Amino acid sequence: MINMLEQIRETNPLVHCMTNVVVTNFTANGLLALGASPVMAYAKEEVADLASIAGALLLNIGTLSSEQIDNMVLAGKAANKAGVPVIMDPVGAGATTFRTSMSKRILDEVDVAILRGNAGEIASLVDVEANVKGVDGSMEGDKIELAKQAALHFSCTVVVTGEVDVITDGSIVHTVYNGHPWLTKVVGTGCLLGGVVASFAAVGREDLVNAAKEAVTYFGIAGEKAYEKTKEKGIGSFQEAFLNCLFTLTDQDVDELRRTEA
Amino acid sequence: MINMLEQIRETNPLVHCMTNVVVTNFTANGLLALGASPVMAYAKEEVADLASIAGALLLNIGTLSSEQIDNMVLAGKAANKAGVPVIMDPVGAGATTFRTSMSKRILDEVDVAILRGNAGEIASLVDVEANVKGVDGSMEGDKIELAKQAALHFSCTVVVTGEVDVITDGSIVHTVYNGHPWLTKVVGTGCLLGGVVASFAAVGREDLVNAAKEAVTYFGIAGEKAYEKTKEKGIGSFQEAFLNCLFTLTDQDVDELRRTEA
Amino acid sequence: MINMLEQIRETNPLVHCMTNVVVTNFTANGLLALGASPVMAYAKEEVADLASIAGALLLNIGTLSSEQIDNMVLAGKAANKAGVPVIMDPVGAGATTFRTSMSKRILDEVDVAILRGNAGEIASLVDVEANVKGVDGSMEGDKIELAKQAALHFSCTVVVTGEVDVITDGSIVHTVYNGHPWLTKVVGTGCLLGGVVASFAAVGREDLVNAAKEAVTYFGIAGEKAYEKTKEKGIGSFQEAFLNCLFTLTDQDVDELRRTEA
Repeated sequence: MINMLEQIRETNPLVHCMTNVVVTNFTANGLLALGASPVMAYAKEEVADLASIAGALLLNIGTLSSEQIDNMVLAGKAANKAGVPVIMDPVGAGATTFRTSMSKRILDEVDVAILRGNAGEIASLVDVEANVKGVDGSMEGDKIELAKQAALHFSCTVVVTGEVDVITDGSIVHTVYNGHPWLTKVVGTGCLLGGVVASFAAVGREDLVNAAKEAVTYFGIAGEKAYEKTKEKGIGSFQEAFLNCLFTLTDQDVDELRRTEA
Repeated sequence: MINMLEQIRETNPLVHCMTNVVVTNFTANGLLALGASPVMAYAKEEVADLASIAGALLLNIGTLSSEQIDNMVLAGKAANKAGVPVIMDPVGAGATTFRTSMSKRILDEVDVAILRGNAGEIASLVDVEANVKGVDGSMEGDKIELAKQAALHFSCTVVVTGEVDVITDGSIVHTVYNGHPWLTKVVGTGCLLGGVVASFAAVGREDLVNAAKEAVTYFGIAGEKAYEKTKEKGIGSFQEAFLNCLFTLTDQDVDELRRTEA
Repeated sequence: MINMLEQIRETNPLVHCMTNVVVTNFTANGLLALGASPVMAYAKEEVADLASIAGALLLNIGTLSSEQIDNMVLAGKAANKAGVPVIMDPVGAGATTFRTSMSKRILDEVDVAILRGNAGEIASLVDVEANVKGVDGSMEGDKIELAKQAALHFSCTVVVTGEVDVITDGSIVHTVYNGHPWLTKVVGTGCLLGGVVASFAAVGREDLVNAAKEAVTYFGIAGEKAYEKTKEKGIGSFQEAFLNCLFTLTDQDVDELRRTEA
């Protein structure tokens, strides 16, 4: 049994999150429920200090400004220098030119360890958007190809999320079938997943593909269990139950409920 | 039966929200619960792009800065050009000179389709604050006059919320009696209502007075039902139940429970 | 019986919060649950106006930038001039040089009435960090000395929170044993406590040590009761139950459940 949850709960890794204003509270509460120690900090005067002592750094461009991207690059470079894995979430890449170009700027200037996005976002970064429009979840074959292409292009681990999640470093490929559609009805679940991947990366630096796969599996199972408990009530209750599941799930639960393929 | 909820849930209109940092998460979750697709974006480099492809644009000045107002005007003008209805919430207008003048600036430079505020806020924008101090909810007659005056002054639909809500374009007047006082004990319900009005406007552009009235009615009924379910527990539970009600209410529920007058 | 909750609920004091983006929603909802009237405002054009009419001003540097600190100083000076108590929360002081120096800047330029932090934060501001590393909660004796030292150094009331909370003005010392470890598993509880202290200060200006002690006691008891109701469920449910307890606790409950020493 892979005991990554136990490791996180014993070591409470510091996860420096530079994320968007919509999800910052939910991300922090999700990481606390998991057992990590989130720290949210954005100022140019301190991001390098914090990134270099963190267990992992999360860069999420959800409500970006040019200045924030400058600070993310600053933090990312400090993390690189200190050997701290950088997890990047290019929220909305492809939706506006600004997001696509800012995402590419980060990927150009920072050594990103894990890139997490949906098929459309990842496709826009490797300039193949035309091919994958509407792919999300429905055409796993194409999604695996896309993920591998991005992983090779950026020399990093790529997590393409959707109805099925694909995790790959360009050669090893994992697919995760856990998860539930209600996760898409709470804002910031994808963003929180970036933080969860960062937390797993902090304790599993030696094998980032495995860390990302375990993070995605745990997250999906929590979504399934939360749905079972709240399907009669509604999405407000699901949000609470999901945090409860992140808090109570054990490594053993994950092993029993995983639906993954390598 | 007016089937606007069904339309929203089938078409998931994109609602571009430029709102305040206090309520951004709650607004996004409320709109997802309703069935809309919220997108929060603030940067000058992209707001025009997003506003022009949205179903509606929400401008809420709750935690304004001069720079954000510049960006709101930019987005508003793009929305106008594309025929996208702009919903404006002048949070705290009248409370500080800055808020009043920034609200007037937006109304001056952008063609606002629906203006939503409480009596004090709306009054400050048409320079009649002296007359309406303390009016909120208690003097419906004056509130109707105020709403009509503002609607004619700004050539838009005006929603004045309070114990009773008034919706008017200056000639047609609707009053909505649905709602519950506990809605005022959760931060951001008024702000979320702005987003809900925007979502209804996105699917009901041809009759904005009706869209706003339906939005306010649905919102009020959700508050009433949430109170019934949680009055023994407290305001923390109300917040969750309210999201559940936004998620589960149907057009038929709204028709059965509406308390409105035309 | 000290009836401060009753006073807050009858007068709904306006609490101007300049706080961080992670906790702003939770702080506002917590203060509404308590019965205060939170207003979140940050712009240089209006913070002085709002601070001078508030019942109390909260300055929390959680996601600081240089510009925000400028605005906090502006607000703080206006509050000082108007006799409005300023409550300061130096989040993360000691963790980065930037936070320590910005905290000291505020304390230098603004007359802070109540300073609230954990032992590490407070220690960093009086330059004794070496002595107190790891002290938090475990060495009450040292913590009392630290709090008294800070109170004398800054001529204010100091609240050092942890497993045991210490409140002192340098001569009178209160220790509060109420509280629960799960409060540390929800983000922003410490920040919200700053707002709760501000609310109590607004109605208890004539005795700030007492106001701070009552605030901390009420808060701790709410945490204990919320834990009892949700320990089988998890931290997502605790968050909701905690807001419910803030909403429903009475002065009599607090008197019956207090575990404090003077």
